Amino acid sequence: MAAEIVNPRSDSETGSESEQDGAEPLTSLDSFDPAFALHRGGKMAVKATVPVRDKDDLSLAYTPGVAKVCSAIAEQPELVHDYTWKSSVVAVVTDGTAVLGLGDIGAEASLPVMEGKAILFKQFGGVDAVPLALSCTDVDEIVETVVRLAPSFGGINLEDISAPRCFEVERKLQERLDIPVFHDDQHGTAVVTLAALRNAARLSGRALSELRAVISGAGAAGVAIAKMLVEAGIGDVALADRKGVVSRDRGDLTPIKAEVASFTNKAGLSGSLEAALEGADVFIGVSGGTVSEAAVASMAEGAFVFAMANPNPEVHPEVAHKYAAVVATGRSDFPNQINNVLAFPGIFAGALQVRASRITEGMKLAAAEALASVVGDDLAADYVIPSPFDERVAPAVTAAVAAAARAEGVARR
Amino acid sequence: MAAEIVNPRSDSETGSESEQDGAEPLTSLDSFDPAFALHRGGKMAVKATVPVRDKDDLSLAYTPGVAKVCSAIAEQPELVHDYTWKSSVVAVVTDGTAVLGLGDIGAEASLPVMEGKAILFKQFGGVDAVPLALSCTDVDEIVETVVRLAPSFGGINLEDISAPRCFEVERKLQERLDIPVFHDDQHGTAVVTLAALRNAARLSGRALSELRAVISGAGAAGVAIAKMLVEAGIGDVALADRKGVVSRDRGDLTPIKAEVASFTNKAGLSGSLEAALEGADVFIGVSGGTVSEAAVASMAEGAFVFAMANPNPEVHPEVAHKYAAVVATGRSDFPNQINNVLAFPGIFAGALQVRASRITEGMKLAAAEALASVVGDDLAADYVIPSPFDERVAPAVTAAVAAAARAEGVARR
Repeated sequence: MAAEIVNPRSDSETGSESEQDGAEPLTSLDSFDPAFALHRGGKMAVKATVPVRDKDDLSLAYTPGVAKVCSAIAEQPELVHDYTWKSSVVAVVTDGTAVLGLGDIGAEASLPVMEGKAILFKQFGGVDAVPLALSCTDVDEIVETVVRLAPSFGGINLEDISAPRCFEVERKLQERLDIPVFHDDQHGTAVVTLAALRNAARLSGRALSELRAVISGAGAAGVAIAKMLVEAGIGDVALADRKGVVSRDRGDLTPIKAEVASFTNKAGLSGSLEAALEGADVFIGVSGGTVSEAAVASMAEGAFVFAMANPNPEVHPEVAHKYAAVVATGRSDFPNQINNVLAFPGIFAGALQVRASRITEGMKLAAAEALASVVGDDLAADYVIPSPFDERVAPAVTAAVAAAARAEGVARR
Repeated sequence: MAAEIVNPRSDSETGSESEQDGAEPLTSLDSFDPAFALHRGGKMAVKATVPVRDKDDLSLAYTPGVAKVCSAIAEQPELVHDYTWKSSVVAVVTDGTAVLGLGDIGAEASLPVMEGKAILFKQFGGVDAVPLALSCTDVDEIVETVVRLAPSFGGINLEDISAPRCFEVERKLQERLDIPVFHDDQHGTAVVTLAALRNAARLSGRALSELRAVISGAGAAGVAIAKMLVEAGIGDVALADRKGVVSRDRGDLTPIKAEVASFTNKAGLSGSLEAALEGADVFIGVSGGTVSEAAVASMAEGAFVFAMANPNPEVHPEVAHKYAAVVATGRSDFPNQINNVLAFPGIFAGALQVRASRITEGMKLAAAEALASVVGDDLAADYVIPSPFDERVAPAVTAAVAAAARAEGVARR
């Protein structure tokens, strides 16, 4: 399942694998590729935010001063949010089983991605984040481990855990913890996709309820996008895996796909992905597969094609443009990049700001709306989603998520 | 057991407990005490050490560039040390059961201390550290949790875990992990104590082998100090708990105390702590108890009194000075402060520098020697141990520990 999904943020390195063959000395890796030189020594550090210059500083920041703060928290546990970094720090947790497009590469090899995620949290959302790559892959072991760690963190961002285990890990953690637990490969992708779709619909003067969408890829991202589109009021959505459209009459569905079948595909489609695309208004690709030009040509007039596989979109944007009104990809070198960094920093920043106990559907929908609204009057076919470097994005998402948390009663301040 | 030990770094707050009674609004806590104002929002943050200003930066630090680095580590696992922060980051792990002198206050209430420890690691040793306060207290659960986390860290600093569980947690983790596992309450305290004792002996022209020491407190610190003094070649050492001297003929010993009895107390003492002090050369206090002036007066001529309980030393330094040649405490407002911050930052910095697989007895002895040697020709009765703010300390300890790791064959570069 994991191999089926290509995270839209991931440009996997199929083209350069030969570069890493053998065991070159380190200096050669560094001089060969600027990515290695940049990663040397890691990409992050810890810093003190209070001075420790002399005895007096030490006696406030450490003993004896710190003991009063500990005693106060022991008496009033909610003070931990005021007097530690708990409320500003998120654990980025993975088991290394579905890393980018690379698959199950293990905990340590996943660390560069988790560090990258951590610095994006900081850079774009002002959220401190700690990479935690676990050496276990059993669902219950992951859950137990994270539950035991949770006192130190204000939120848990699950990352690159393969489907279908990722669904169970997330559900069990949400049941057991009173802090936000968010699997970015699912919900971050879904939020950004919905934002782009909202703007594409606005551009063409259509309501979401008029649209029929087809999603290629029934892993973490595909399932989450399907759920979110239904909650946002899409007319109909069908999800396709490698065996074709997920429908109630298929006998080979996993529990998650059976659940998806229960609330999608009102049209009762069956058969191939390409057959389902005939007359469809929206294509959303989160698989590694390809879609033929003929299938794209068979879509409805003014269709939207979001071909988010990386590095090779399911259909090349130039081909898609021949038939579609709006084209988006997961790549930074084409317009309309569906990039998770547009969502997760602001979502966690907003949730932490109000000490939300969880991240609700309403908070995710609010994030998508806020993200879409940043585009404003500049809306155009090649601008349905803001740039990751648009400084308006994170504050807009943060504020919307915090307000939604309050409205939904999960805010604790 | 935990209550018996007062960490020498801890100035517990018995004098000010009434301040925290009731549930004052936060602003009143902040305005009441500068320690609360300082701790607001926590004491640490994460920062990126690489730029993420634009698309090009992002494509190196995150996708697609990061995928090459992940693939390289998957092929050559040891590269994780070169291309992530693993080799510079330590987990500060506690279960909150023996925090300072406050006892079992739980995971979240322990966080201010763990954050403090983390910033001391950074400030004094240049070591990144992440506070991890666990919600479990079972030995095997702690061990399993830390083992699962270990891929993300270059070392594990155990902190404020109550005895005797701390001994078992440390031993099991050392058996299972190939990175340094170090319980600072034990070994940090022992290293600094030995350094001070070495200098006190040098000042009085005596060899360690001529000295008989008595330790008050048979918890984490006391046991570790006893072991280290024996390894350093002390003449004799006896450990006393609340029931008196730990001797082979006592029937009430825990397994750890029985082990201690097997290699200490060559003199075959039994009975009270105070009786054991008669004619003794060294007193080392790591308990919350008191020692009478008469007992101190009964020690040998030119004795050393290290009364390290906080905030109240076992014997007041002014009293001790009437009889002892050298007096040390755990307090910063008297000369000769035995402070763990003199040891743990450099010990981990040295171990990480050479990617040591563990911290050996030889590395700890080398740390104590290096720490003692910083005092140099300025050695005096009120200067047997350097100040925590002496900038020569961490580099000296780091270099000595790295060299010892190489000499002992545990260095991996």
